[in-house]
Amino acid sequence: MTAERLVVVGGDAAGMAAASQARRLRKPDELTITAFERSHFTSYSACGIPYWVGGVVDGPDALIARTAEEHRSRDIDLRMRTEVTELDLDRGRVRARALDDGGREYWTGFDKLVLATGARPRRPDLPGIDAPGVHGVQNLDDGQALLDTLEKSAGRRAVVVGAGYIGVEMAEALIRRGYGVTVLEQSPQPMTTLDPDMGALVHEAMCGMGIETVRGATVTGVLTDGGGRARAVTTEDAEYPADVVVLGMGVRPETTLAAAAGLPLGDAGGLLTDLAMRVRGHDHIWAGGDCVEVLDLVSGRTRHIALGTHANKHGQVIGANVGGGYATFPGVVGTAVSKVCDLEIARTGLLEREAHAAGLRFVTATIEATGRAGYYPGARPLHVKMLAERRTGRLLGVQIVGHEGAGKRVDIAAVALTAGMTVEQMTALDLGYAPPFSPVWDPVLVAARKASGAVRAAGG
Amino acid sequence: MTAERLVVVGGDAAGMAAASQARRLRKPDELTITAFERSHFTSYSACGIPYWVGGVVDGPDALIARTAEEHRSRDIDLRMRTEVTELDLDRGRVRARALDDGGREYWTGFDKLVLATGARPRRPDLPGIDAPGVHGVQNLDDGQALLDTLEKSAGRRAVVVGAGYIGVEMAEALIRRGYGVTVLEQSPQPMTTLDPDMGALVHEAMCGMGIETVRGATVTGVLTDGGGRARAVTTEDAEYPADVVVLGMGVRPETTLAAAAGLPLGDAGGLLTDLAMRVRGHDHIWAGGDCVEVLDLVSGRTRHIALGTHANKHGQVIGANVGGGYATFPGVVGTAVSKVCDLEIARTGLLEREAHAAGLRFVTATIEATGRAGYYPGARPLHVKMLAERRTGRLLGVQIVGHEGAGKRVDIAAVALTAGMTVEQMTALDLGYAPPFSPVWDPVLVAARKASGAVRAAGG
Repeated sequence: MTAERLVVVGGDAAGMAAASQARRLRKPDELTITAFERSHFTSYSACGIPYWVGGVVDGPDALIARTAEEHRSRDIDLRMRTEVTELDLDRGRVRARALDDGGREYWTGFDKLVLATGARPRRPDLPGIDAPGVHGVQNLDDGQALLDTLEKSAGRRAVVVGAGYIGVEMAEALIRRGYGVTVLEQSPQPMTTLDPDMGALVHEAMCGMGIETVRGATVTGVLTDGGGRARAVTTEDAEYPADVVVLGMGVRPETTLAAAAGLPLGDAGGLLTDLAMRVRGHDHIWAGGDCVEVLDLVSGRTRHIALGTHANKHGQVIGANVGGGYATFPGVVGTAVSKVCDLEIARTGLLEREAHAAGLRFVTATIEATGRAGYYPGARPLHVKMLAERRTGRLLGVQIVGHEGAGKRVDIAAVALTAGMTVEQMTALDLGYAPPFSPVWDPVLVAARKASGAVRAAGG
Repeated sequence: MTAERLVVVGGDAAGMAAASQARRLRKPDELTITAFERSHFTSYSACGIPYWVGGVVDGPDALIARTAEEHRSRDIDLRMRTEVTELDLDRGRVRARALDDGGREYWTGFDKLVLATGARPRRPDLPGIDAPGVHGVQNLDDGQALLDTLEKSAGRRAVVVGAGYIGVEMAEALIRRGYGVTVLEQSPQPMTTLDPDMGALVHEAMCGMGIETVRGATVTGVLTDGGGRARAVTTEDAEYPADVVVLGMGVRPETTLAAAAGLPLGDAGGLLTDLAMRVRGHDHIWAGGDCVEVLDLVSGRTRHIALGTHANKHGQVIGANVGGGYATFPGVVGTAVSKVCDLEIARTGLLEREAHAAGLRFVTATIEATGRAGYYPGARPLHVKMLAERRTGRLLGVQIVGHEGAGKRVDIAAVALTAGMTVEQMTALDLGYAPPFSPVWDPVLVAARKASGAVRAAGG
C-alpha cells in the first residue's frame, strides 16, 4: 500500500494542530504529512504578541507552543520559510517557493489538502502606509519587526490606527514601553465589537489610562521624514506625530490562493466549509483557522472571526477527520474577551446592529453591578448589557465591561447561548456565589432579570 | 375589602426578599406584612461573616443589605428580637415571643405564611461543647460574639472543627487575626464537598499556608479551664490547646416549628416545597432559604444546600407568588465556590459518591492546566475533575481547585449542567480566550475533551 499524501498550507495553530492530530491517528507508512510555512515561526500564539511587545512576556520563544524541530521529530515534514504560491486542484499538487533558497519553486502532490493560510491585517491603500515604521502585528515576524523599530526609535510617540482588540492591546503595550499613545478610531466609539454605549465605557476608561483616543478619525495617510520613515499620521482634521505607527484595523481572511483555485468564499472573504471543516464541494480539502468563515449559531450566518482558540479547535477537528476519525465544529456564538490595562472587555452573541441585520426583534437591558460582594475589598463596577429576542425571550447576546472578574463572566452567557436558553431561564442559573467571587445576585443574573422583565413588558 | 395578612417567620435573605417583593406587587391596603426575626439583625450576608471576623471587611453594618428601618419605611411591620414559638395552622396564627420585652408572648393571625427560619450550625452533643469560647458562625450575633471572644482572648491558638466551606474560610480569618490555627476534620480529606482526590489538593495547599489540618480526627469533647471556658479540644488521639474554638461542621435546616406543625420534611430535615416554593400540600404556606430542601436537577432528588444566593432567589419567587404574580424556582445543580487564602475551590453537579448514590454509572477525567496562557505572568496551576455519564456522555459534575480564575470557571459547567449538555458538546464551547484570561484551550475544555475520550473508551 502506498501512503496517502497530506499537504498542509500554513504552519500555525490550525495547520499544525491538524497535522499533529492526523499524525496521532495515522502512522507515516499510512500517511505522509508535508506542511509549508512562509514565516520563520510555527505553532505560535499571535494573541501573545501585544504582551511580548509590552514586555509582559518574553518572546518570541515563549509564544511558540511547538517548534519546527518538535514537529519534525513527529514525522511531519515541515518546510519553514516556504510559501505556497499556487493550488493545482486538478492535478492534486501545490507549487511552493523556498524563500531562503533563492526563491526556488517546486511542485508537491497531495491526496488530501489542508488550507490554513490565516489572515492578513487590513492595510488601507493610503499614501505612506508601507513606509518603514508602520507595522501590522499578525505574526511573530511582525512582532519582531515592531520591536526592532521600537529599539531603534529615539522618540516616544506612538499612533495606533484602530481601536479594536489588537488596537487597545497594542495601546497598552506601548504605554508599558513608555510611549505616549494616540489611538485613532474611525467609529464614534472604540471597540466596534461592542455596541456604542458599551464602547463609550471603554473610551472613558482609556482616557483615564492616559491613552489619547480620537473618535471619528478617518486616517488619510502617513507622512514620512527625509529618510522615508513614518513621522506622522494624518486624518481629515489633524496630524499626529508618530515615531511608530501600529495598524490595528483588524484582519481579513488570507484566501488569495483559494480564490485563484476557485474554492468557495463567503461574504467576508473566508473559505466556506461544512461541519467537518471540509471545503464545501471538495471531499479531500479541509480548511480551518483564520482563513475560514464559521457558522454563527445565533444569527444562522457565517462570519469571519480570527481567534486562536477557534483555529486550534478547527485543527483538532480536521486532523481527526483526515486521520480517519470523526469530529465536527458546530459553530461559534461570537465570544471574545480582551483587556486594556485593568479594564476587561467581553462580548458574546450578537450586538444590536448584528441582531437587526439578522432580522431579529429584541429588547435590551443594561445594568451596573460589582464583580464581588459590594462590601468585599476590590469590588469594582462592572457593566452588563444583554439582548433578548422579543416573544421567545431567547438570549441573543451579552456585553460586559468592567474590572477583575468581568471578562470571563461572559462564558456564562456563551454556554447559555449555545444551549438556546431564554433570559427567564437564566435568572434561575445556579452560579457560584461567595463574597470574594460575586454579589449574592451575580451581575449576569441581575441583567437576565432585567432583560426578562423587558421581554414581558414588550409583549408581542 | 379587608387586606390580606402575610406573616413572615425569619428576617434574613429569603424572608425579607419575599416580603419586599410582595410589597412591590401589593399595596398595604391589599396586603399587610408582618415579619418576625429573633436576632438583632435583618437582611444580612451570613456568608460575609468570615471576612468580617478576618478583618477584611467592616462589620456588622457593611454586611446588612437592608436595615429594619428601611424595611419598615416600606410598610413592612418587622419585629426584631421576636421569636416565633408555635405555628397554629388550623386557626391561621403564629405565637411570637418578644425577647427584649420580658418574653411577652402573643398570637398574630395570617392568611398567607412564609417560613424562612434558616439553618442552625451542627453542634455535636459532646462534653464542653457549650462552654464559653466555643462559637458557631451562623448569624451576625454569632459573628459579634466570636469577635468579642477574640478581643478578650490573651492567647493566639484557635481550633476549627470541620474543614468544609465555613471551616476553611474561618481558618483563613483566624490566620489573618494572627492566630495559630488547627483544623480538625473527621474525614480523610478536608472539603468533603469535593471528592477525596480533589480534597487532597486543598489539604496540601492549607499546609503550605501554615494551617495545621488534622485529617481523620474525631472530636470527643472540649476541655475547660477553672472559669469554665474552653481551653482545648480533644480527639480520640490527642488534645489541641485552644483559646477559641470555631464550629464549622455545616448546618441543618431549622425546622423545629415546621416539624411540630406537621409540615412535610425531606430526608435532610428541610421543608419540602413545590416549584412555586409552596410547602407541599399547603396552598397558603411558602418556605424558602436555608430551611428548605431544593430539587437537585442532576440527581433528581431534593437536598439541603444553605446558600445566600438560593435564599435570595427563593424569596424573590415567593414574593412574586404571594403578591399575585408568577415565578418558580426550578432547582439547583449544586454549585459552590470558596477560597482559603489564594486557593480557590469550586464544585457543581455531583461528586463520585453522590453519582453512585443516584444510581448513575460514570467516567471521570482529571486534568491540570493553568488559568491563563502558560506564558502569561501569574499563570498558576488549576485542577479540573469532570464526571460524565456512561453511554450518554452527559455532564454530571465538575470540581475545580486552583488559583486566580479557578473558582468562577465552575459557572461554565453549572450552565452546561442546567442545559443537560454532554461533555462532547462541551468540547466545542465558544469560551472567552485571550492570554491574560485563559490558555487557548480553556481548562474546562481540556477536561471535557479528556472526559469525552473516557466516555468513548468506556463503551456501553
